Order: sequence, then structure tokens, then C-alpha cells
Amino acid sequence: MIKVGIVGGTGYTGVELLRLLAQHPKVKIKAITSRSEAGMDVSDMFTNLRGRIDLKFSDPADAKLNKCDVVFFATPNGIAMQQVESLLQEDVKVIDLAADFRIKDVAEWEKWYGMKHACPHLLSEAVYGLPEINRKQVKKARLIANPGCYPTAVQLGFLPLIESEAVDINYLIADVKSGVSGAGRKAEVHTLLAEASDNFKAYGVAGHRHLPEIRQGLSIVAKKTVGLTFVPHLVPMIRGIHATLYARLTKKIDLQELYERRYEKEAFVDVLPAGKHPETRSVRGSNLCRIAVHQPQNSDTAVILSVTDNLVKGAAGQAIQNMNILFGLPETMGIDQIALLP
Amino acid sequence: MIKVGIVGGTGYTGVELLRLLAQHPKVKIKAITSRSEAGMDVSDMFTNLRGRIDLKFSDPADAKLNKCDVVFFATPNGIAMQQVESLLQEDVKVIDLAADFRIKDVAEWEKWYGMKHACPHLLSEAVYGLPEINRKQVKKARLIANPGCYPTAVQLGFLPLIESEAVDINYLIADVKSGVSGAGRKAEVHTLLAEASDNFKAYGVAGHRHLPEIRQGLSIVAKKTVGLTFVPHLVPMIRGIHATLYARLTKKIDLQELYERRYEKEAFVDVLPAGKHPETRSVRGSNLCRIAVHQPQNSDTAVILSVTDNLVKGAAGQAIQNMNILFGLPETMGIDQIALLP
Amino acid sequence: MIKVGIVGGTGYTGVELLRLLAQHPKVKIKAITSRSEAGMDVSDMFTNLRGRIDLKFSDPADAKLNKCDVVFFATPNGIAMQQVESLLQEDVKVIDLAADFRIKDVAEWEKWYGMKHACPHLLSEAVYGLPEINRKQVKKARLIANPGCYPTAVQLGFLPLIESEAVDINYLIADVKSGVSGAGRKAEVHTLLAEASDNFKAYGVAGHRHLPEIRQGLSIVAKKTVGLTFVPHLVPMIRGIHATLYARLTKKIDLQELYERRYEKEAFVDVLPAGKHPETRSVRGSNLCRIAVHQPQNSDTAVILSVTDNLVKGAAGQAIQNMNILFGLPETMGIDQIALLP
Amino acid sequence: MIKVGIVGGTGYTGVELLRLLAQHPKVKIKAITSRSEAGMDVSDMFTNLRGRIDLKFSDPADAKLNKCDVVFFATPNGIAMQQVESLLQEDVKVIDLAADFRIKDVAEWEKWYGMKHACPHLLSEAVYGLPEINRKQVKKARLIANPGCYPTAVQLGFLPLIESEAVDINYLIADVKSGVSGAGRKAEVHTLLAEASDNFKAYGVAGHRHLPEIRQGLSIVAKKTVGLTFVPHLVPMIRGIHATLYARLTKKIDLQELYERRYEKEAFVDVLPAGKHPETRSVRGSNLCRIAVHQPQNSDTAVILSVTDNLVKGAAGQAIQNMNILFGLPETMGIDQIALLP
Repeated sequence: MIKVGIVGGTGYTGVELLRLLAQHPKVKIKAITSRSEAGMDVSDMFTNLRGRIDLKFSDPADAKLNKCDVVFFATPNGIAMQQVESLLQEDVKVIDLAADFRIKDVAEWEKWYGMKHACPHLLSEAVYGLPEINRKQVKKARLIANPGCYPTAVQLGFLPLIESEAVDINYLIADVKSGVSGAGRKAEVHTLLAEASDNFKAYGVAGHRHLPEIRQGLSIVAKKTVGLTFVPHLVPMIRGIHATLYARLTKKIDLQELYERRYEKEAFVDVLPAGKHPETRSVRGSNLCRIAVHQPQNSDTAVILSVTDNLVKGAAGQAIQNMNILFGLPETMGIDQIALLP
Repeated sequence: MIKVGIVGGTGYTGVELLRLLAQHPKVKIKAITSRSEAGMDVSDMFTNLRGRIDLKFSDPADAKLNKCDVVFFATPNGIAMQQVESLLQEDVKVIDLAADFRIKDVAEWEKWYGMKHACPHLLSEAVYGLPEINRKQVKKARLIANPGCYPTAVQLGFLPLIESEAVDINYLIADVKSGVSGAGRKAEVHTLLAEASDNFKAYGVAGHRHLPEIRQGLSIVAKKTVGLTFVPHLVPMIRGIHATLYARLTKKIDLQELYERRYEKEAFVDVLPAGKHPETRSVRGSNLCRIAVHQPQNSDTAVILSVTDNLVKGAAGQAIQNMNILFGLPETMGIDQIALLP
Repeated sequence: MIKVGIVGGTGYTGVELLRLLAQHPKVKIKAITSRSEAGMDVSDMFTNLRGRIDLKFSDPADAKLNKCDVVFFATPNGIAMQQVESLLQEDVKVIDLAADFRIKDVAEWEKWYGMKHACPHLLSEAVYGLPEINRKQVKKARLIANPGCYPTAVQLGFLPLIESEAVDINYLIADVKSGVSGAGRKAEVHTLLAEASDNFKAYGVAGHRHLPEIRQGLSIVAKKTVGLTFVPHLVPMIRGIHATLYARLTKKIDLQELYERRYEKEAFVDVLPAGKHPETRSVRGSNLCRIAVHQPQNSDTAVILSVTDNLVKGAAGQAIQNMNILFGLPETMGIDQIALLP
Repeated sequence: MIKVGIVGGTGYTGVELLRLLAQHPKVKIKAITSRSEAGMDVSDMFTNLRGRIDLKFSDPADAKLNKCDVVFFATPNGIAMQQVESLLQEDVKVIDLAADFRIKDVAEWEKWYGMKHACPHLLSEAVYGLPEINRKQVKKARLIANPGCYPTAVQLGFLPLIESEAVDINYLIADVKSGVSGAGRKAEVHTLLAEASDNFKAYGVAGHRHLPEIRQGLSIVAKKTVGLTFVPHLVPMIRGIHATLYARLTKKIDLQELYERRYEKEAFVDVLPAGKHPETRSVRGSNLCRIAVHQPQNSDTAVILSVTDNLVKGAAGQAIQNMNILFGLPETMGIDQIALLP
């Protein structure tokens, strides 16, 4: 059994890790920490876990994370980078669900995240945990930077197109919509039901932290810097991301065949038949990314639709997928739940 | 492996049976029928099942249901009663998720359901499939009448109180609230999102078909006819039932202890600690009924709060629970998913 | 023109007062205060008011409230009681939308609100502003305690029944459901969309602050203390209250006729035809209370359904209704908007 | 008083016309027709209108529409074109809220709407009722084609940009999101709350009927055919459209100044300050279009955000705006309600 620790388990990423790991046949959860809630029954906070998780939140100081095989950081940005080094020294693998190790360029990271990086020397070692691109590197990693929710949906959507060299990479558009759980379990006015329900809006058009992450990922594939406009929107729903991606085709290509071939061996990427539109509920609670490709009115504009559950393939599920790869387990183990519909 | 057939799989009860049975380790789904959609891929209708269920809807005439070990009827009321007899004759067990065999009194049934009963002689044999009351009878049944969604939440909530003989059974009140999926996957104006969202209303106050079903169940326990006022309401959410139950206490009793003792061996009934309030999302997608008991302001009024997922413990999950009992499997097999929260 | 001041305008009651008063033909809004947001454009916070309200939030010290004809307190509980006296001394009328002057018994108030009352000597003078009961007193009041949202819907629902002396007042049940705006515009986890959406729960069953307020109001009408069980629930919608009221009839009575007669002259209470069920959206944004009466299955249990918009008839609209009465204006002036449906 | 008739009043456009016209000081509603619901009280269907609209739906044959000054068609596509001619002959003005007269090219119309046009000779006379472009023509029109909901939001958003000749009009992208009321008050499975709630999806990517309408409008302004990719999405909310528009700038331009200047005299177009993001609820129930302009990361991509209420500025409100212009009334008369927030 893999001994697992979770740091910072009081957010949505935390509860989702617990839901999935509690049902994982090869995992034993040893500790889940929370400085503020130490001593509280986990199932008092997350009522779905009553009878299934008997742990209490523990103080990080008491959690003996160094005895774990792997530690997940489900913390705000800037926490993992302060603790990773000592865990690695004790041969504990680390999977960070926050953004501390996602951006390779430390100056870029510091600009977008507004703080000094605590261990920049680990940035080059950290593996960006998008298995569909970096599976081999994940297998031998010590430190995995789990991708952000928007970046997962957008990169999986653009990837085959950019690999195909058939689009103008200077002018990519990602119009992306997210459920409110993407904002986290934080007491804030703008995500109250009375504010966010029966409402729709864009936000962060001037610049969002996931922009440099997506741009970095796509640029590595393109082998040159891509031009990307990224506009996130808030949808009055709990879970789900829907990316609508636009790119200008520069040569004739069979989009459907391109995507089906690229993802035919991927367990968690499902390319829909031609003409379909994926819906976020078709992946609710599941680790899948479902994608459809369109070329409306036979113009030279490709339209790619990509949906994920932001808390599963966009966070906790992908983290466990990375853990499975890291520990040589079947990649789908414990994360093959069928989506809940309706 | 248990060979399973499903009649009428295009509703919410159907997709939920499929979601659960597809992950059940001892089940092989042989056929799912739909007269109107015969030939259509199941996963074209229910997009969550893509890659997990390879069946097409088949015409009932071609489905060879008589080769199954058990057949679930997920049909509108009035269908199962026409087909059950021939299946029983071929030693196929039947679990009816509709109302055809729930009411023992044929005249009462015909009054509420507005049609003539097609096989009244099976009414006395049919076992009302609420395992927490009738587990022994379920074990040897040929024909199971799976309870309605409201009746499950209300009966599990009132049961210990009535068994205790500590309440005035002439004056029970069940104020019950249901998510919109309870109305089924039917094209109707009043359950459109634009009609039912951001809205709340009662309906059927003059009389609802679940009233006689609940009254029958409680009266059997009470050994005399109970007086019940039952008011259903429509909640702008997808899944979930919340029953708020009121009864007048006629003697002093420790409600918390009564409920904990009654349900201590039940895998699917969870009595919350004193002072708590269950929420429907704590059972979303799971087969649990969570209950809390209150006696506000030390008055003689007991207030019981009981929540279920109407499509799971209120329908498909309970049907599989009954199947597990019927075939001697562990009662929780295949239906122990943790609720999805948030 | 009536010169109006609003104290504490950053909550939902505040924005709703502004929406209604901005369109009131006899009102001039002089100031709206907020200590925390002083200097901010009101329309920066409430984007619906852009182009219609040109005020900035002002510091209470600068607001010259003593020059107003009437001041509305849209503040948390415990604020108005500290400022009312000085305003009254300057002949400013006060309408308090919080709870400071709703309960006549100071000990009872202090028990439920957990603080010492700052000016108990005004409690007897304060008029409880439910015009359908106290219209005459409102007309000559200096200080009006505007009723709570639950108490408005429940009292208007029970009122004719209790006046009729045809029910057992020892055993009244109010099962009440509220949209999330009732919790106010406060950053709290439990009312986040990701927490409260697609979910339903009861809360405060042991005791809620609106219980003594309702009990006081009904007891005055009954001329003796009533026995009331009050259970509030949270509905995943923005606005609206639905009260489902139960009472045991002690004599034969024509409920429909009773209610129609009682409210025939009331502009803001609409008794629906027999057999109907009111829905909250039918009063969304309007000052109406719509009521339907039922006696299901000819039992001796009366079931009353009463709906309001918690922010209008349950708060800001009723406050303006009181203002209209106080200043001799037509009672419906400025608050006769048609509900927004869908 | 203007005598008004409404043909086909059982949809959302119908109820919204009634809500607004009932409060319009210069309008007398003479008839509202519905073949299927003739004889039914309007307020039985639309419960918000109880006490405010005393009409019954009347059979078109009995409605004496020829005695009206103006008739609104709130019918499905293909109805108005059969009745307009006879009304015009009796000097009745016609405002069609459906699509019959929106497209000037009859072949194009017949291709997208899949039926033969019944009176193509009126197409050239019909005035496209977007007042911000065609106010002068509206003033003297007999027949007004009221714009579609998506086309209103998209055209108002793109208009200044195209007039400025500062963008590449061959490559415009409109990623547009609509609340579910845009699908109308029709019994359909895919817009049930249980299907559409907590879900997000694109639809009609291959081609949507509003594409040719928008393309026609923008091409007239550009004086050549524009290249447009139009992707509509379904948002789990009742009302509201949010258009996110992308265009490539071909020269340096002050976007903020351009938009503020273009719309400074428009009562119903509100350009937000730089850096803001409009939200749909800020126009809920109001006739406003609110717009914000962005140029993220100083790239050459302009991002325009445009929101409307699809049932008001996108349908009934704009129709009344056109009526006001047509009859020489102040343009804002009866349609200056403040949006309902929260």
C-alpha cells in the first residue's frame, strides 16, 4: 500500500483527493493536515465522507509526512515551495496541486504570482504533470507540478493542432468557462450563490495566471513562442470547464482523424464523433477530458471544444493519475468512476 | 455473473441503473430496451456512459429478457404489470421501479393511478422492497416492488418513531422537497430550467400518489391506519430529497438513542450526531439515507430530517440493493460510491 | 419630495432600497452611508444602478442624516438602536430594517440576539411595521420596526386562521424555505454557490431568531401565547420565501372565503383561487405576498402556502410601504413593479 | 393611447411584452392571441401578471387586430409573414419579433429557415429594428423586423470596431453564451432543469440561424462581406446573453474612446469604464446593453464584452423601443426599469 499524506485538505482539491483516494485499492491515507482545523473530524467539514474517512485534520507539525511515500500539496500557492525540499531529502515524492513549480522561468513566475520563489533550483527538476505529454518524465519524477484546471483543458484541446503544424500559432484564442468551484472554498462575496447564480461574466481579461502556464506548455510543443489570447469566464455551476478554442488553419487537414489518432491510446481523453458537442456534465466527477473538433462553414477557422471536471482531471484526479504512473500502477486505478448524470 | 435486463432505459432511473450496474462486479447487463429508441447507442443519449456501456437500446421483442436472471422495470407506471407474469413463469426475478405493485389494495391503486390493474393476483405476492423493513421477505421474493422516492425518505424517517409508539399517529406531517429529476426525463414546460430554476413551489397538496404508499407502509408498522398530511415541493436542484417530518410526542423518549439503535446495523442509513442538519449533497450519487432528529425548544414536537438521492436510494440504488439481497451478495456491492461534494 | 437617508447600504437590503427608491416619484435620496466603503460609487458595487444612482457611499459622520425626513437602517442588528434616539430628537422618522425594535420583551430580545439593548425605553413606542395588521399605528409612528422576512410570510399566512379562532393555536407548524439572499451579502463559506447550489438543507431547527418574532406577532392576534414549531430551510435560489403552514382545525370553516375576505382590501396580499399553489417567482422583485389555502383529503389539517420576495415584501419593499403610509402617500407608490418571470 | 395587439403570447417574448406594456403609460393592450389557449386567463399561465393583466388569450379570428395601431408578432418563425400584408393594408404597423423579415436575401432566408417565404416582396421594405443603427428608418417604417437576441448583443459589440475600419473583418470571432430562456417556452428535454442545470455546452457550431443575420448586419456596416465564426453556448441561467468578441486590430486605436464616443447619445448602450467586465445580471429585466473593451497583454487582439437581457434588449424591450420611435414617444418610455440585482 502506498502511504499518502495530504497537506492542506480543507479546500475542494482536498475533499476530492479524499473522495478518490478513499476508494483507491492501493492507497492508505496516513495524514491530512490543516493548521486552522487541526483536531476536527474530516467528515464534519465534508459531510459526504461520513463513515468513509475516519481521519481528523492534523497539525502539520504532528503529521509525520516524512514517513509517507508521497505527499500531495492541496495548499494555496507559495506553501509547497517552502516544504518540498525537506520531503525530497527523505525520499518522499511530492505532487503539488498548486502553481509553485509549474512555470520554468522564475522571473515570469514571480511576476504573475507576486512573491519571491522559495526554491527556484527545483524548478528545472520539477516535471509538469500532464501525462498526455510528459508520461515518461512523470514515471521517474521526484517532484510533480500538477497542471492548473484551465491549462489542462486548453492544452489537451490545442495539442494535436499545434503538433500538426497546420495552424497559425501567433493567433490562438482560448475562450474558457469554469464552474465556481474553480475559485476554491474561500469565503468571498463574488462567488456567493446570490451573486454568481443566474449570472455570467468574464474576468481577468487583462491577464490571468493560467495564461503563462498555457503559453509555456504550447510553446514547448510548438518549439517557439505562441501568441495566445485567454479569456476566462465564470459559469453558474459547481464543477466543469468548457474550453472553446479557435485557431486559423494554414493548410488542409482532417481534424477529426488528427485528434482521434493522437488520443487513441489515452485512457482519459475521449474524442467525440464528428459533429458532436461535449457537455461538462458528461465528465462530472470523472477524470475524463472529452473533445470535439469543428470547422464551421468550411472556413479556415478550427473550433475545438474541450471539457473536463476542474476538480478531477483539472486537479485531484490528474494528481492521482500522476501518482499511479509514478508508482507503476495501472494509470486508471481508483479514478475510473463514471460521470454522474444527471 | 448475474444476467440483467432493463426494460425502459431512457429515463433517469434507467441511466442511473446503468451507471451503477456497469461498475457492479457481479453483473452482466444483457439488454436494455426502449421501443422508441431501439437501435440507438445508449451512450449517444447518456453521454456519461461513452466508453463504459457498449449496448444499443433494443426493441423489447428482441431483447430475450427471459434469458436474464433478473429484469428491472424502469418504465412508466402500468407497463410492468403487463409483462411480469410471463417473466416469472420463466423463473426470471423482477424488480419494478415503477408503482405497479406497491399498493396492496387494488381499488386504492386504481383510484390513484387512474387505470385498471392488469394482474391484481400478484399484488399479495409482491414484496415491498424497503430492505430496512422487509429484508427477510426480499431475500425470497420473485417480484419486488421498489419503493417510490418520497416514500423511501419519509418511511425511513418516521419508522423508529412509529415503532416506538411514542407519537400521536393520527397527526403526522411530512413536508417533503424534491429535486427536479424526480419528475423524470420528460419534455414538460413546468420543469424547464427557465421555469423551475430560481423558483420554489409546492404541488399536489390536494393529493399525491405517494400519499397512499407512505400511509400503507406506516400503517403496517403502526398496526393501524395513520393520519398523514403529505406536502411535496419542487426544489431548483437536480437530485435530492429532503423530508422534514413532524410528529407529536405522547411520551418522553430519547430520540437520538432511539434512531441510533434502530439503524445501527443498517449500511445505508446514517443517523447524524445530535444537533446536526443533513444536506442533500451529502448523499448525491450515493445510496445513503442520512437522518437527524430534533425536539426544538423542548416542546412535544419531534422534527425528523431525512435526506436521500432520489435516483439512488430513492430508485436505482435501492433496486440494486434489493438485487444484492435477492442473489445473496453483500448488500453494499456495487453501490458504495462516496457522494460527490461539492 | 421626501428626503431619504440610508444607513448601511452595502447589503442586499440596501441595494433593493436603492432600486425601488430611485424610481419612487416622491423621494429624493440624500445619502447612503457605509463606514467601510465611504467614497466608493454606489454603482461600482451594485452594477445594476449604473446611470441611475449617482451617489457615493458616505461616511456616517458626514451624511447629515438629521436633515432627512426619514432614515432607513439597512444595517446589521445592534446598530440602529445606538443612533435612533438622536434622529428622533431632530424629528427624523426612522424605519429599521434590522431586528432592534421588533421584540417588545427586552429580555427575550437580549437572549436571542446575544447583546444588551441600547435603548429599551423605545421598544414600547416602536411600531411593528406589518401594515396588514398595524396600518393605523404605522401612520402616526416615529419609529418603525420593519418585520423580518420569515415573519412577514408566516404571519400573513397564519393571520386569518388565528383571527378566526378555528384552529388549535397550541400546535402550529411553519416549515419555511428561503433563497440564499436571505443570508445577506456576507462572505461566508456555506452560502457560496459551490456549497449551496444543487443542495437543500434545514438549519437552525433548535431555534432561530425569527421564532420569537413570529410567536409574538401571532400571540398578540390570538390574545394568548401560541405554540409554534418553526423550521427554516435554505433553497438554492437567489430570492424568495415559501412558507408551508400547518394547523389543526377545531371547527368547520370555509378557508377560501375566510382568506379572500380578510385580504380583499389589501393591495399587497393576493389570495389565489382554490386549488392553486403559489410559486416564489410569481413575486420576484415585487412587493406582493401570494397565498393559497388547502385542506388536503378533507382532513382537519389546514395547509397554507404563502410566498414573498424576501428582499421586497420581506424587507425593502415593505419598508417603503411603511414610508408611504407614514407620509400619507398612496400605499403602492413606487412599489408596484410587476414580478419578473421567467 | 396606442392600441396594441399581440399575436402569439404564450412564449417568453409574449409574457415579457405584457410585463412591459402593462406598465407603459401610453399603451392600451387590446388583444393577445393564442390559438391553443384561447379563453384562458393570461394570468393563469403567467402568474406574475395576476391582478395586472385582465385579458384572456383570444382566438386570432376574434381578436380584431385590424383595429389596433400596432401589432407585435411574438410567434414562431413563419407565422408573421402570412398575416403582415393584410394588417399593413389596414394601416396597422407591425413589429415582428420572429425572424421572418430579418434577412434581405430570400434564398439565404429560405436556406436557414427551411421553408418558403410567404411574402418576399416585403423584405426590402421591412426595417431591421436595431435603433442604434437604423433609428431614422424605424421612425417611418410600416414593418419592423426586430433583431434576434444574439444578433443584438454581437452587432452592438462589433459595431464601433467595424465602423472604425481598424480591424481585419475577414476574421471575426463571436463566442456567445445565452441563458436557457433563449430556447423559448417549449417542452423539450435538453432544456429541462435536470439536463441543463449544473452543465455547460456549445451547440450549433456547424451553423446557427443567427449567423447570417449577424453577418448581414456587420457586412452592411463594413460595406463588404465579413468573415465571422459564431459559436453559441447554453448557460445554466434563465436570462442573459454574454458575447465575447475577438478581432485583430490592423491599426492603433483608442478602443475605450472609440466606444464611448459612438454610444454617448444612446440611452440603452452603456460603455463601462476601462478594465471592467460586464455581468449579465447587471441588465436582468432591463433594456440595456452594457459593453466593455479590452486589449489584453497589449497584443493586437481586441476583446469586446457585451451583455444584454435576451428577453428585453434582445426581444420585447427592443420591440417596444422601436414602437416608441415609430409613434414619436420618448425612446425610453415604459422600458427604463432598473435591473434586478441580486
